[in-house]
Amino acid sequence: MLLLGSVVLPFGAASADEGMWTFDAFPAAKMKRDYGWAPDQAWLDRVRAASVRLTGGCSASFVSGSGLILTNHHCVASCLEDLSSSGSDLLATGFIAQARTEERKCPGQQAEVVTAITDVTPRVKAAIGASAGEALVKARTAAIADLEKQGCLDTATTRCQVVTLYGGGQYKLYTYRKYSDVRIVWAPEAAAETFGGDPDNYNFPRYALDASFLRAYENGQPVATPQHLTWTAREPKKGEAIFVVGNPGSTQRLLTQSQFAYQREVNLPITLATQSELRGRLITAMRQSPDHAREGETTLYGVENNLKRTIGRTKALGDPQFNAMLARNEADLRSRSVGNAAIGDPWTDIDKAVTAQRQIDAEYRFTEPQGDLFDYALTLVRAADERSKPNGERLPAYSDSALPLLEKTLLDERPVYPWLDSLMMEWSLSKAREYLGVDHPQTRLLLGKESPEGLARRLVSGSSLADAKVRKALWDGGAAAIAASKDPMILYARALDANERRVQKLYDERVDGPITAARAKLADARFAAYGASVYPDATFSLRITYGKVGGWIENGREVDYRTTFRGAFDRATGAKPFALAPAYLARRQRIDEGGALDFVYAADTIGGNSGSPVIDRDGAVIGANFDRNIHGLRNDFAYDIDKARSIAVSTAAVEQALKVIYPAPTLLAELHAK
Amino acid sequence: MLLLGSVVLPFGAASADEGMWTFDAFPAAKMKRDYGWAPDQAWLDRVRAASVRLTGGCSASFVSGSGLILTNHHCVASCLEDLSSSGSDLLATGFIAQARTEERKCPGQQAEVVTAITDVTPRVKAAIGASAGEALVKARTAAIADLEKQGCLDTATTRCQVVTLYGGGQYKLYTYRKYSDVRIVWAPEAAAETFGGDPDNYNFPRYALDASFLRAYENGQPVATPQHLTWTAREPKKGEAIFVVGNPGSTQRLLTQSQFAYQREVNLPITLATQSELRGRLITAMRQSPDHAREGETTLYGVENNLKRTIGRTKALGDPQFNAMLARNEADLRSRSVGNAAIGDPWTDIDKAVTAQRQIDAEYRFTEPQGDLFDYALTLVRAADERSKPNGERLPAYSDSALPLLEKTLLDERPVYPWLDSLMMEWSLSKAREYLGVDHPQTRLLLGKESPEGLARRLVSGSSLADAKVRKALWDGGAAAIAASKDPMILYARALDANERRVQKLYDERVDGPITAARAKLADARFAAYGASVYPDATFSLRITYGKVGGWIENGREVDYRTTFRGAFDRATGAKPFALAPAYLARRQRIDEGGALDFVYAADTIGGNSGSPVIDRDGAVIGANFDRNIHGLRNDFAYDIDKARSIAVSTAAVEQALKVIYPAPTLLAELHAK
Repeated sequence: MLLLGSVVLPFGAASADEGMWTFDAFPAAKMKRDYGWAPDQAWLDRVRAASVRLTGGCSASFVSGSGLILTNHHCVASCLEDLSSSGSDLLATGFIAQARTEERKCPGQQAEVVTAITDVTPRVKAAIGASAGEALVKARTAAIADLEKQGCLDTATTRCQVVTLYGGGQYKLYTYRKYSDVRIVWAPEAAAETFGGDPDNYNFPRYALDASFLRAYENGQPVATPQHLTWTAREPKKGEAIFVVGNPGSTQRLLTQSQFAYQREVNLPITLATQSELRGRLITAMRQSPDHAREGETTLYGVENNLKRTIGRTKALGDPQFNAMLARNEADLRSRSVGNAAIGDPWTDIDKAVTAQRQIDAEYRFTEPQGDLFDYALTLVRAADERSKPNGERLPAYSDSALPLLEKTLLDERPVYPWLDSLMMEWSLSKAREYLGVDHPQTRLLLGKESPEGLARRLVSGSSLADAKVRKALWDGGAAAIAASKDPMILYARALDANERRVQKLYDERVDGPITAARAKLADARFAAYGASVYPDATFSLRITYGKVGGWIENGREVDYRTTFRGAFDRATGAKPFALAPAYLARRQRIDEGGALDFVYAADTIGGNSGSPVIDRDGAVIGANFDRNIHGLRNDFAYDIDKARSIAVSTAAVEQALKVIYPAPTLLAELHAK
Repeated sequence: MLLLGSVVLPFGAASADEGMWTFDAFPAAKMKRDYGWAPDQAWLDRVRAASVRLTGGCSASFVSGSGLILTNHHCVASCLEDLSSSGSDLLATGFIAQARTEERKCPGQQAEVVTAITDVTPRVKAAIGASAGEALVKARTAAIADLEKQGCLDTATTRCQVVTLYGGGQYKLYTYRKYSDVRIVWAPEAAAETFGGDPDNYNFPRYALDASFLRAYENGQPVATPQHLTWTAREPKKGEAIFVVGNPGSTQRLLTQSQFAYQREVNLPITLATQSELRGRLITAMRQSPDHAREGETTLYGVENNLKRTIGRTKALGDPQFNAMLARNEADLRSRSVGNAAIGDPWTDIDKAVTAQRQIDAEYRFTEPQGDLFDYALTLVRAADERSKPNGERLPAYSDSALPLLEKTLLDERPVYPWLDSLMMEWSLSKAREYLGVDHPQTRLLLGKESPEGLARRLVSGSSLADAKVRKALWDGGAAAIAASKDPMILYARALDANERRVQKLYDERVDGPITAARAKLADARFAAYGASVYPDATFSLRITYGKVGGWIENGREVDYRTTFRGAFDRATGAKPFALAPAYLARRQRIDEGGALDFVYAADTIGGNSGSPVIDRDGAVIGANFDRNIHGLRNDFAYDIDKARSIAVSTAAVEQALKVIYPAPTLLAELHAK
């Protein structure tokens, strides 16, 4: 059998290694044709069992038999922030548990492993029947709630989720083994991960040690995870085949032309303007004190990351050639669907729904303020209402299958920073007023006679919901407790709730329902035209993608596929974000500077793939995926195998860190245990 | 003769009252056809002689024989800010000079009145000849510098400016009588003008008392201005014909499709993101102290105003119907130009130049940081160089005709706020790094090994250029003084200067030169196709536009054409920006609440028209133009007479203010003197 690790195939070959495949539809035949080898079912099952979804929005993998989880540092940053205080900044110092007793629980975090995938398309489609608009959405919601409830009777250790694929073309029931006690084990200083900061984000060469370890616990003990990936600290090889397994969050590759136009003309400009302003507000507010700087760090990271994606999407949809390619794709599908009476004209149906979407966009976008305290309040208000209804009639977020994680997220103790919560509320309320207009009834409902800053200050300073015990009492007390509460944030959420439901109903009737129906037809059209070669858009559910380690050609020159620790030392200026982590400087003598730090490969990923293991043919992990290059910002709409590259921190770099920079001998021993 | 004031003509008639006309090309025949009356040359001459350009970017008019100038409050806000201090906030309190000795000089302000317009197209075009690219730009610059110098030998009282019309189709020499001593006479509390704030900006109904008075001085005495507009405090009448005379800043109505695409795909998204972030930074920084709030106010106003325009432009170019209309316009001109060999294919020439523009966009956009101190430094560094060159070989900003105003702007005493200057520098440098990329040579030149915040802090805290005496010494000292200066901001400007010149040269060669040549041909094509019915894009030079007082139809309902003081009281919430000015509340009993405050009319205006007198048929001023409605935000690209309205504060409202809210009996007497 050919040793693929040493074979370099040309990139951009006719059969592109594109696609975020579900585990029940891996294109093994295609890969075998292109690579001379493909994983068998046993390989896929083993990898799937070792793949972890983190409910914070990341991916990960088991790398020891005792529940040890490899993920990115930026996936645990909010945990470190939550566990920090004025005297102890775990983001700055990093965190190393030298014994299991030192491992600390991450608030709100849950680890989930797929154990089964069942096709429930016929059942959901039957429930929908010929219904349309809001009725369609209701029928689908009820069917999904029922399937999820019946699928996972043991809600303490399992979670069921119906995943909508192809925007409504398929429905699959994913069953997860869940671990709701996840603890932090090891994390480098934040400066080792944030080196390069926002300027280097979505760029390569890159020098981020974006790795950390968590551990899954159950009943106070580490869980046994015999089906884990093998840890190998070897360097990646140029041209070798790799797999990236994880949970890409969201792509929009199957949109129609009118939906792309909505993105280009409505959604992206609003996102660009509002998120940029938030960024500016955060940057300045965080300068006001070291505590603010620490407390705002992960929020700012998230905003800047989102913003860079938005700018990348804006550029993609502002590129005439890129748009022409998207238009050709649609034209091709349309021409292949001519004469297929079952398909009808879903494009025109979507055009109409998008026209409605443009009309109600601001109303739908700005129904409520942002902020942790408001989120708590609305969850409590709605839960009191929804939990008394039959499962199938609830809002999806309150179905029986969703309640356990919702309850955990609500009741886990986490710090709330009043300045930050006020900032988020004020900013979002002022944007609501800006885009709705001063005289819109919804603006009046949101603000009354108050200003965004005055209202935010009054609600945040007056609310007790930062206290988890208060939230617990309101959760347990249900509707009576909510009705009796004088907490101003609860009162405010109660005042907004009915309008939010009204707007959601409007959206379901005019936008979501019609688009779901049309997309189901588009999915049928694609299957008819292209067979199984079409993969579904990302939905933060488990996928596998494959490709090869290697750089790309930029301005006529090949970008090297790997960086080294030496490169980090060369790039450092001493000024943030190009200041090296203190431990790098202190332990420079012991670092093998020629050793790999980060590396790139042609694999089809998107946000949510952060922390995904990069796996070699033998099923060993050689890196943790954490980013894409600048061309990869177009992955939302299309994958360009010639230019788009994903970026991982190499296990070789993590091994060096564990040995000499942030020494953790026990952890090293565990990783290498047979 | 028909009394037009009492006749209501339907809006949206076939012959739209569109156009920002130059005074030497007023479409009198057309107006006469549509209105039954049009101004004669004497009327036009009288109005022109009373029309004032304020070099800060506004328009105005003489309204007494003693140099009294009516303009907007927002046009004098930075003057009030400059004259304020911790103990005395003239923006908050307003300013009323009860005697001429109390009138205070506005830093940097100059008033200019057009005295002659001469067509110099043949001379400039002859100088350009067959040159192209950078050579074309150089030849044009030299010809203009020469024309301006020869046209105004008395630089103490006159200013000459060659205005480029139709992007290079025509060149007109404008001669101005100038007054470089302009003093503040009367301004209401800022709250009376900013009522509604950014939320109400570019909206109507509106309740802003956006008026103030200045006075032009010469040799320490008020100047005699016998040719002033008549002050009348009568209410505007629905349907009456009005003229708006002023200096619209910039429109882009004559762009080609590829230039619109550049706006839509490159310029607007970058402006949207960067200005939004600046807005957020300013809002938060201004919260840090009352001084910051006062010192940042006009900067924030400018940023928010620019941002709202950018959002409006983004919406316009994101509207498929609007784009189709722009495309049809181009197609019409192309089809009418077929077979006209003299025209050639300027569209393709522009396409090529726009491709080059896209390539060098970030480099051209981010050559230098923003901030007053850097502006002073670069001006000093360049002036030392440029003043030693022959007039025709200098950068345009340093030609003999431009130097007097440049010197005044540089040397007038104005406060510099270090926190604000640092903020602007840091923000702009961080955006340069973001859009150029960390590894771009220009980023390295701008930042060296420093961070944007570190560099900004070092330069701003180390520079002495806030002191006007220091600037004077460097200006007078010329090249030797600059060479000897150790001021870090001077050193920094010197380090950047050569690169800026290189980038400008590149831009002139690949973008400005080719586009100027092509636009001259497009102008010829338009004249050939449409005759004199095509007006030039706005260029912050004197224009006259006409139309009728009246509202528009919004969602099937007519928006009333005027607001009253009562409306302001009704709209007030007590919370900023909907808190009434204290004097309104204190003197409510004496206010005639039913009296007009603001009013709208169909007239073709744009930014720069702020302060423009709204003149009735008799040449009396009935308002000061200060804004447009939301549909008017499209005026950049096209004028929609059905929906776009301009907004003025009525003289009736100003009269009430002068009588009972901010009493100024002497001023009232002057306005009503015969």
